Parts: sequence; C-alpha cells; structure tokens
Amino acid sequence: MARYDLVGIGNALVDVLVTIEDDFLDSNGLPKGSMNLVGSDQSDAIYDTLPPGVEVSGGSCGNTMAGFSALGGAGAYIGKVRDDGLGKIFLHDMKSMGVDCPIKPTEDGPATGRCLVMVSPDAQRTMATYLGAAVDLGPDDIDAETIQDSKVLYMEGYLFDPEAAKQAFIKAADLAHEAGRKVSLSLSDPFCVDRHRDAFLALVEEHIDILFANEDEVKSLYRVEDFDAALQHVRGHCEIACLTRSAQGSVVLSGEDVHIIDADPIGDKLTDTTGAGDQYAAGFLYGYTQGFDLATAGKMASIAAAEVVCHYGARPEVHVRDLIREKLAV
Amino acid sequence: MARYDLVGIGNALVDVLVTIEDDFLDSNGLPKGSMNLVGSDQSDAIYDTLPPGVEVSGGSCGNTMAGFSALGGAGAYIGKVRDDGLGKIFLHDMKSMGVDCPIKPTEDGPATGRCLVMVSPDAQRTMATYLGAAVDLGPDDIDAETIQDSKVLYMEGYLFDPEAAKQAFIKAADLAHEAGRKVSLSLSDPFCVDRHRDAFLALVEEHIDILFANEDEVKSLYRVEDFDAALQHVRGHCEIACLTRSAQGSVVLSGEDVHIIDADPIGDKLTDTTGAGDQYAAGFLYGYTQGFDLATAGKMASIAAAEVVCHYGARPEVHVRDLIREKLAV
Repeated sequence: MARYDLVGIGNALVDVLVTIEDDFLDSNGLPKGSMNLVGSDQSDAIYDTLPPGVEVSGGSCGNTMAGFSALGGAGAYIGKVRDDGLGKIFLHDMKSMGVDCPIKPTEDGPATGRCLVMVSPDAQRTMATYLGAAVDLGPDDIDAETIQDSKVLYMEGYLFDPEAAKQAFIKAADLAHEAGRKVSLSLSDPFCVDRHRDAFLALVEEHIDILFANEDEVKSLYRVEDFDAALQHVRGHCEIACLTRSAQGSVVLSGEDVHIIDADPIGDKLTDTTGAGDQYAAGFLYGYTQGFDLATAGKMASIAAAEVVCHYGARPEVHVRDLIREKLAV
Repeated sequence: MARYDLVGIGNALVDVLVTIEDDFLDSNGLPKGSMNLVGSDQSDAIYDTLPPGVEVSGGSCGNTMAGFSALGGAGAYIGKVRDDGLGKIFLHDMKSMGVDCPIKPTEDGPATGRCLVMVSPDAQRTMATYLGAAVDLGPDDIDAETIQDSKVLYMEGYLFDPEAAKQAFIKAADLAHEAGRKVSLSLSDPFCVDRHRDAFLALVEEHIDILFANEDEVKSLYRVEDFDAALQHVRGHCEIACLTRSAQGSVVLSGEDVHIIDADPIGDKLTDTTGAGDQYAAGFLYGYTQGFDLATAGKMASIAAAEVVCHYGARPEVHVRDLIREKLAV
C-alpha cells in the first residue's frame, strides 16, 4: 500500500494571466500567439509594465497533478521554487488542491519561474516563460521517501534540458524501480525531443514504463514522417505507450494490446488547447492507479482532456470525476 | 502463378444516372437523398417517366473490380444478369475495363438489376434499387475454374440476403481455400449485418481471411457501442481485418500487427462518399496481391478512397495508380 498514487516531477511555474491590448505585444517585441523563453531581466521588464493580473500555479506537470488530485487520486509534487512571493503562491495552490509538496524553497539563486500569459482582446494568448529556479532542479531535490512511497512516478520532458535535471530523472526512476514502482514520462514538446533525441531514446528504452506523447513528439522521437511508423517503433519499447492525436483521439499500446480511444466529443466548444496533454495524463494515470483496464483509463483521459479544451486555462473547471462517472458508468 | 489477382462476386447492377427536378421525387413518393429497394413494377414505372439518362455498370463489388483493374490488377467478376439491354451494358462495361466476366446471362426470370440514381438540382442523390436477376445468384453460378485460378476471392455482404447466395458464398470460399487462395469479404451495410448477424459471425469465423468493414458495420457485427470494443473482438477472428472510419482513416489488423492508416487528405473537396468503401477495398487488395506490406496496402487504399469521394460517382475518374506512385514513391 503506497501513500501516494502519483508523484510528479516538473518545472514549478506560476502562470500570471493578464489581459492586454495588442500594442503592448508590439512594444515588447512579442509575436502574438507565440511562446517565448525569456531571461530574468526580460521577464521582470515585461512584468513591471503589465497591468494587474491573476496568479495561478502552473507548469505542465503541476497541471497534471492538480487534475489528478481533483479526480480523487493521492498526489505529491516535486519541483524547485525560491522563497519569494511566487514560490509561496505555487506551494499554497498545490497544497490547497490536496497535492503534497516535499519541497524546501531555495533561499538564494534565481527567482521562482513564471509564465506571463498575455491575453489579447481576440482571446489569443502570448506567453513569455522565465524558468528561474525550476531549471536548477538536480538529484539533491529528489525526495527518496516520496518517490518510493508512490505507485507511479510521472515526469515532464520539459525538464530535460539541463544536465542536472537529467541526473535527477535517472535518480528518481531508479528509486522508483527499486521500490517496485512504475515510471512514466510525458515527452512534452517536439522541439525538446529534437534537442535531446538520443538521451530521450535511451531514457524511454531503459527507464520508462509508461510513455505519453502526442503525434508530433513521437514522430520526432523516432524521426519518421507518419504516425503509423512511429507507432510501430514505440511498440515493445515501454510497457505502456499513450499516443495522443488531438481530435483524432489516442492510441494506447501495451505489449500485444492496442486500444483506439476516440476523443470525447466537444461539438464546437473548442476554446483553448492549453493543458490537453496534461489532463490526458492526469485522467489516464488516475484510471491506471485505481486499477481500471487500459481502455477505461484511456476513456477517462479523453474525458479529462475534452473538459480542459472547452475553456481557457490548463486546469479543470468542473468536477471531471462526475463527468467520468456519468459517461462511463464507473 | 494465378491467372487472376482477384475475383469478385457481387450484385450485378447497372446504375442509371438521371438529372431530375425535385417535384419528380414528390410525385413518385421518394424522400430526397434516400436509398429505396423497389420491385420490378415500381422500378419500371419510375424508369418510364424518367428523362434520358446515362447507364454505367455498378454495384459495390463491380465498383471494386473496376477500380482494381484500373490500378493494374488482373480481375474477374461473377454476378447474375439477364440477357437484356442492361445485362449487355453491364458485361460490356466490365469487359471494357479489363475485368473478365465468366457469366452466362439468364434467358428467363427477373430482368437485370438496376439502380436508378436521381440527381436533384442541389446535387443530392435519391436511389431506387431493383435487384432483379442479381438476387437469384446461387451455387451453380460459381465458376470453379475462375475461383481456383485467382489469388484472392472478394465478396460483398449485400449478397447475403437470399439463402441461395449464402450457399454460393460458402461454395466459393471452399473452392478458394482448397486451391490455397485467400477469401475476403466486405460487410457492406450495418442493416444487412443486423439482419444476418449470426450467419455473418459464422462466415467470418470459418471462411474469411480478409475482412473489410466500416465502423458502423463492425460495431453492428459484435453488438458493441464503441470502435475499440469492436476492434478487440475482431482481432484473431480473421487473418487480416481492415476497419474504415471515414475521415479518421482506417485500422489494419493482422495477428499482433496493428497499423493505423490516416485518411489521405482531401481538404474541402468532399463531394460524394458513394464508393469510398469499394475503392478502399480495391486499393488494399491491389497492394496485398502485389506483395506490398500491410501499411503500404492500407495507404494505397486510403488514396483510392480519397480520390473517389472528391467527385460524383463510385468509380475512379483519374489514374489512381499514378497518384499512388507519386504519393508513396512505389
């Protein structure tokens, strides 16, 4: 009996949501709709000129853990924040959602990471992300007890840029496996996969039991042009692979098992695809850790992903658990 | 070395394409866009009042054989026609497309089957089908030599209503298997599957190597609500199953192999879905009989299906073989 169903390791970021006029983007040289990685100074400079905003703890893995906890799973989160205002917001938000955070905020070094989300009058989102403290995550930040006491470990691929984070990944995966736990990974981003293809391939091959990837990511991982070719590559390379295809649903593979999971229908309600992959992982891992079969876990994932794309923001706004109960009669 | 790559058995029908005004449908009690099975008298009555039309040999399996032959496959066709005007048109058209027809037209009994296709000014198609001679197909019509001398036998599910046609199916399948050939079947229609579910299940289980079914048909066959459940049922029940999903492409299953084949993109050119399944089967069976792997055969099928839905009519209008060569570099 594990204390946690799921422990996540990710980039601890606070989203700062601000409504702006279009000329604000022009004067800061930000193309509308783009996602920009910025340094501390640029982030501060933009933030200083922004009107008042709304702060919400975020980050890909943070969103997954928030969704997982809301579904009723027992979750913990490991990431790196500074002992500053945004760091306090991050930890407070996660704890208030029922996610334990065995994290000691750093007392020096970079500030807590943040993603400035600038919403234009036409509802387009332009992002400027400063990773801050998050990118300094290393092996020392991995809380062994929490990892060993969680059924499944979940890690986001975004973390995979700095060398120390890679070492933290391997350490966490080894700790989990030694304790008889499962290790899962979300590839997160085709460009990140492209930068670290060999390392990702080795990671998937040697350390990952459950892989999440969207179509572009898995095609990038195996350097192939079509989805079916990627699917043939991934079979047998990890215990379970969940390959997502937006409106075309997803494919869940496990050994000889293949399940084709339709997207949960949303009619014309598509609003903002941010967080679809994060909530898909939350839904699947909830089903998996509660002992449901793969097809049912996949359907739970589809329902969670469909909910989050029908509104702005990367976290669920309604009780997805009720939606699942109603739609799947479980 | 077989003389033919493919021999088809189907309802031999001639399509009569006529442009009409909407009030013609009202005065004949035909709901616009519907597919109506009519008797000889009603078919004659409608035909007598129709303006001049264009006759084209048709029927689901006939369309597949026409597409298969146009791709370069050596094909033969078995079906039942009367020695009347439409019967001559049917045989002439098939032969002129390079499809051999070892058929002796009947000298009495029902007239050659026809499908009156009435095209309204808004391009909607209303159909009145009289099956005629086609429904009398029985074991005696099965030309043993042709079956034994074809790599693959292909049969359409539409034929499966009358008892004599079922016996013809079994006889043809046995002849093919005794000669070491493969037997394929298209389920054709979810309502037909619903009427004969047990017989279809027994047929698939005992006689079919390669099954073609669209999503509705395979769900009807196994009485399940979702595609994935149907997919789990069909695995292992025949050597190869090709499950088509319209714009969502298709899934090709064979033992442990699973291939997810995307639909060939058509942009906004969707015009008329008639014949999509027929040409999918033509493309797949062409690839299969020419020794291509399953994924490549599936892609050929997608290209052939995409071509036919971009124009009116159930047979290809361009050289699909060139499209395939260009797109797949084979």
